[in-house]
Amino acid sequence: MAGAPDERPFERLFVGDTRIDALPGDARGFAYGDGLFETMRVHRGEVPWWAMHMARLATGMQRLGIATLDAALIEREARALFDDGGDGVLKLIVSRGGGGRGYAPMRDAAPLWRLSRHAIPAMSRAPLVLRWCDTRLSVQPALAGLKHCNRLEQVLARAEWDDLVLDEGRIDEGLQCSTEGDVVSATAANLFLLHGDTWTTPRIDRCGVAGVCRAWLLSAIDAMQTRVTPADVETADAVLLCNAVRGILPVGRLGARTWAPHPAVADLRQRLGRAHPAFGQATASDQDDQGQA
Amino acid sequence: MAGAPDERPFERLFVGDTRIDALPGDARGFAYGDGLFETMRVHRGEVPWWAMHMARLATGMQRLGIATLDAALIEREARALFDDGGDGVLKLIVSRGGGGRGYAPMRDAAPLWRLSRHAIPAMSRAPLVLRWCDTRLSVQPALAGLKHCNRLEQVLARAEWDDLVLDEGRIDEGLQCSTEGDVVSATAANLFLLHGDTWTTPRIDRCGVAGVCRAWLLSAIDAMQTRVTPADVETADAVLLCNAVRGILPVGRLGARTWAPHPAVADLRQRLGRAHPAFGQATASDQDDQGQA
Repeated sequence: MAGAPDERPFERLFVGDTRIDALPGDARGFAYGDGLFETMRVHRGEVPWWAMHMARLATGMQRLGIATLDAALIEREARALFDDGGDGVLKLIVSRGGGGRGYAPMRDAAPLWRLSRHAIPAMSRAPLVLRWCDTRLSVQPALAGLKHCNRLEQVLARAEWDDLVLDEGRIDEGLQCSTEGDVVSATAANLFLLHGDTWTTPRIDRCGVAGVCRAWLLSAIDAMQTRVTPADVETADAVLLCNAVRGILPVGRLGARTWAPHPAVADLRQRLGRAHPAFGQATASDQDDQGQA
Repeated sequence: MAGAPDERPFERLFVGDTRIDALPGDARGFAYGDGLFETMRVHRGEVPWWAMHMARLATGMQRLGIATLDAALIEREARALFDDGGDGVLKLIVSRGGGGRGYAPMRDAAPLWRLSRHAIPAMSRAPLVLRWCDTRLSVQPALAGLKHCNRLEQVLARAEWDDLVLDEGRIDEGLQCSTEGDVVSATAANLFLLHGDTWTTPRIDRCGVAGVCRAWLLSAIDAMQTRVTPADVETADAVLLCNAVRGILPVGRLGARTWAPHPAVADLRQRLGRAHPAFGQATASDQDDQGQA
């Protein structure tokens, strides 16, 4: 059997089709965040939503004008990082190639890209505790929906709390509003609300990320993409966060507001688990343990 | 005499006080654009506005919560890159340290930083030809004024034109409005307008960069920081762009609107040249030649 993850090379770097040893100092990804990324769950060596991740990446590369890559090569190299058939997280960064100083992109420069393997993050079995972030998300239709590498707004939001806040107890995630006051998402997850039997999720045409688990949910349930106010969140009968690493996570508290477990959320988690065993009955921390074994 | 610039090492990388050989693959600057930069003119081995660049950097590091660096070390290493007493451009990127996956910053992680030496860009002696960019600047007070590394909006704007546009002829720079419609800046320069004997420049409290040459101008002349409309630009008697590499640059055309050389702009350029010989009578391309000699 192949060695445990911590005995294996954790990253591979490439320019176009060529493997390289290290990031060049003049990488545009480092200078300008001029790139895109995908963060993927890996279950027994397979990525549940591989095609959706690659489709979102291709859309982003086209919108940013980044030269194309050989999708088959990305897949081969991704598989090579998980050829022990293990569990984990696969991160892919694709940045514009060309280097140099100045904003002007070099057309057709081969992208600089990186694959890396990580352990599944530890996850509590308890419903999530959320807070409102002070850091807003700016409105930028030219970038909305993309999982691009300009993430200072998320970094600043995430820096607002430590995992344990003295006055608030444990905090798992924070909700961010746009500069116009609409609720958009958590720092690293999309948001769904249930009112009666109606699911809604914030539109991501002005800011926010078009999450892959969000897309799965939109295909699985009859949810409206709409503008969401903080009051909509407070008055919801159930709230969930979702992303491609953690799947569907019920929310138990937001500030003073609490939610009891809701059967509609449990039902969605079961449906996701049947569709993709990565998100099935085994708890995340169990899977994390397996990933390390 | 020391070797020509192209025989010398062009970059130096550090984590905190320690020199390193290459960017680590998990650099937060590469993953999230989680950093700041300064682009500085160097004239005979000296940076005209060193203290102002370092002050802006320190403000940015404080606002983003990036751990401090030894300013004396930065200065020593910057001087070492120009110990031939040459001319050029010095770029400094200071990114948050810590690496890892996920937005949460590691507090007190030593910054990852890079110094690099570049030739002064070729500059035409003719007044600048501008265009309006379609790509808007998003409104984000939490980042406004900072020269941070989330620059996709500038990259997309600069990608809108090649240096030579068939229908428009030569294009030197593009003006960007905010998503709210205010004129903010060029992609890589600040903007000043003259109406009668009144200078104005866009406020940079909602988006845009607090440029170092802009700060020098604000200290040298009685200019109002205000909201600027596209009509304000069109009706100006004179228009200039400025940045710390190129100094003050008169604008000669914007679309169909043309401006004749204006004595007030020429006067400001002379004052800047007297204060900082880097921006004096010798043309930029002459200086570029010297930098390569």
